[in-house]
Amino acid sequence: MTAGHRLAVVGAGAVGGSVVDLAAAYGHTVVAIADSTSAVVDDGGVDADAAVERKTAEGDLGDRDPEDALHADYDVLVEATPTTLGDAEPGFSHLRAALERDRHVVLANKGPVAERYGDLRNVERDSDGEVRFEATVGGAIPIVSTVEDLDPERVTAARGVLNGTANFILSRMAAEGIDYEHVLAEAQDLGVAEADPTFDVEGTDAALKCVILANVLAAGDREFSLDDADVEGITNIPGSALELAAEDGRTIRLVGEATREGIRVGPRLVPQNTALAVTGTRNIVQLEATDAGQLNLSGRGAGGEPTASAVLGDVGRLG
Amino acid sequence: MTAGHRLAVVGAGAVGGSVVDLAAAYGHTVVAIADSTSAVVDDGGVDADAAVERKTAEGDLGDRDPEDALHADYDVLVEATPTTLGDAEPGFSHLRAALERDRHVVLANKGPVAERYGDLRNVERDSDGEVRFEATVGGAIPIVSTVEDLDPERVTAARGVLNGTANFILSRMAAEGIDYEHVLAEAQDLGVAEADPTFDVEGTDAALKCVILANVLAAGDREFSLDDADVEGITNIPGSALELAAEDGRTIRLVGEATREGIRVGPRLVPQNTALAVTGTRNIVQLEATDAGQLNLSGRGAGGEPTASAVLGDVGRLG
Repeated sequence: MTAGHRLAVVGAGAVGGSVVDLAAAYGHTVVAIADSTSAVVDDGGVDADAAVERKTAEGDLGDRDPEDALHADYDVLVEATPTTLGDAEPGFSHLRAALERDRHVVLANKGPVAERYGDLRNVERDSDGEVRFEATVGGAIPIVSTVEDLDPERVTAARGVLNGTANFILSRMAAEGIDYEHVLAEAQDLGVAEADPTFDVEGTDAALKCVILANVLAAGDREFSLDDADVEGITNIPGSALELAAEDGRTIRLVGEATREGIRVGPRLVPQNTALAVTGTRNIVQLEATDAGQLNLSGRGAGGEPTASAVLGDVGRLG
Repeated sequence: MTAGHRLAVVGAGAVGGSVVDLAAAYGHTVVAIADSTSAVVDDGGVDADAAVERKTAEGDLGDRDPEDALHADYDVLVEATPTTLGDAEPGFSHLRAALERDRHVVLANKGPVAERYGDLRNVERDSDGEVRFEATVGGAIPIVSTVEDLDPERVTAARGVLNGTANFILSRMAAEGIDYEHVLAEAQDLGVAEADPTFDVEGTDAALKCVILANVLAAGDREFSLDDADVEGITNIPGSALELAAEDGRTIRLVGEATREGIRVGPRLVPQNTALAVTGTRNIVQLEATDAGQLNLSGRGAGGEPTASAVLGDVGRLG
């Protein structure tokens, strides 16, 4: 459909690795891959299998420095390094390096859009490159592009369940009648929760996604960061609260809401059998739109391939 | 955001009327409105309120013939006349007249896309105009544009609940334990069902929407029409079937499915508390996508303003 692009992929974890694996199927060529210590660069197209094999065997992707990927001959930089708070580095510098060369940037890293949105738009304004970030909110679910399509001015609020780990824990607590600590341990065994689950269970990850949505809704009229979010996690919810909710036909979900006025994330009672009571690791977003009414979008909110599909969707939307 | 367009709106029912009402808020100018017997044309912008007032008082929109709207100085023809089967006339001729003048066409009328998709694409191929039809499937829900964004090749199936009238009847039958005939009478009193509900309750309307989705998925490799659909309605479902389903944690929904191989519409058992068990007049579509996984989109599937928002979204997507 669209013309193929030349991609440099920075960050070789689950998302970056899946972008590399899938790029050719979407008509694109990967000319550089970098992780935190090494890189492989090939203007004719990187041999991804060889790089992954080498990383497994020798611990690095290739002989080049990570910085070299930023100077490669690409059209689009895919930034898929881990999200960092505060200055959003090194992600922000990667984005700036690409924009200063008039290249496009597609983010899977939430940091630059959640923590430095104004800086991002300023650097973008001076560039022929464009920044897209569908993958930063709700994995495979086309939330940002749907808001753009509706026109942000016509969306009064976006609310939803945006952290799969927290939702998995709440779903299991409700289904099994067991306490937070036990379900967390189970989730860690299954690989659904990280060894340090703070980012997910304290609501930070959901809040970052809501900050991004608030920035999209505000369309530059106001800039939001994590400091603007009112955030409460799920660590203090007793199993008995879920039992009480169930007796009343309801359940508890970690719900985030973004408007042009601010961001709130916290445990909320929601009726069972309704859209927000999504189970397991799925994500859902409800958009309140003028004329269109309420739109619900749900799907896979995390994982390498679903998130990579959003990255590659963004690449396809570039000119 | 996008440049304003000059619209000719053919069909002045709930959808056409809402397009006229909302157009200015989306930055567009309505230069012509036609119903089946009259029209009003004004290159400087139609006075919509006056036309509606005149129609109420005198029965016509203005002094001009409906045909005059097709010759007005517009960029985009909005075709919102009632869906007809077979030759899809007069909708198809309206579309052809616009494309032959190299104008764009946005359809709310399902006929041309469901019954004459190949003809439509042939006429479009010889034109500088483009045809869009988001409003024909699922009202306000951005289904067609999401499939386009994913790339139709990457969507293996689209299934969902696409007729609000049938879904309202099934929801009420399940909630109240009463029979089809009684709920239908109630739905007719409420204006949710038409005096002649055949189109909705026999599955024809849902099938037309699935035919359109099959045409989108096939991307021209194969053309589908209503003749290709295997359709069963809800008129023979006894209330006892819904009771039996409920005892098993399930319910019955009129589910349509479209793939590149064909179209099936009929009553299906679906688990309660899952996405397809949407209640009332809401619509839902599940897309099965490569890499992205299953995406669910739900919202208002009918009504003047929700459907008009999809029409105006399409207008905004035009160059």
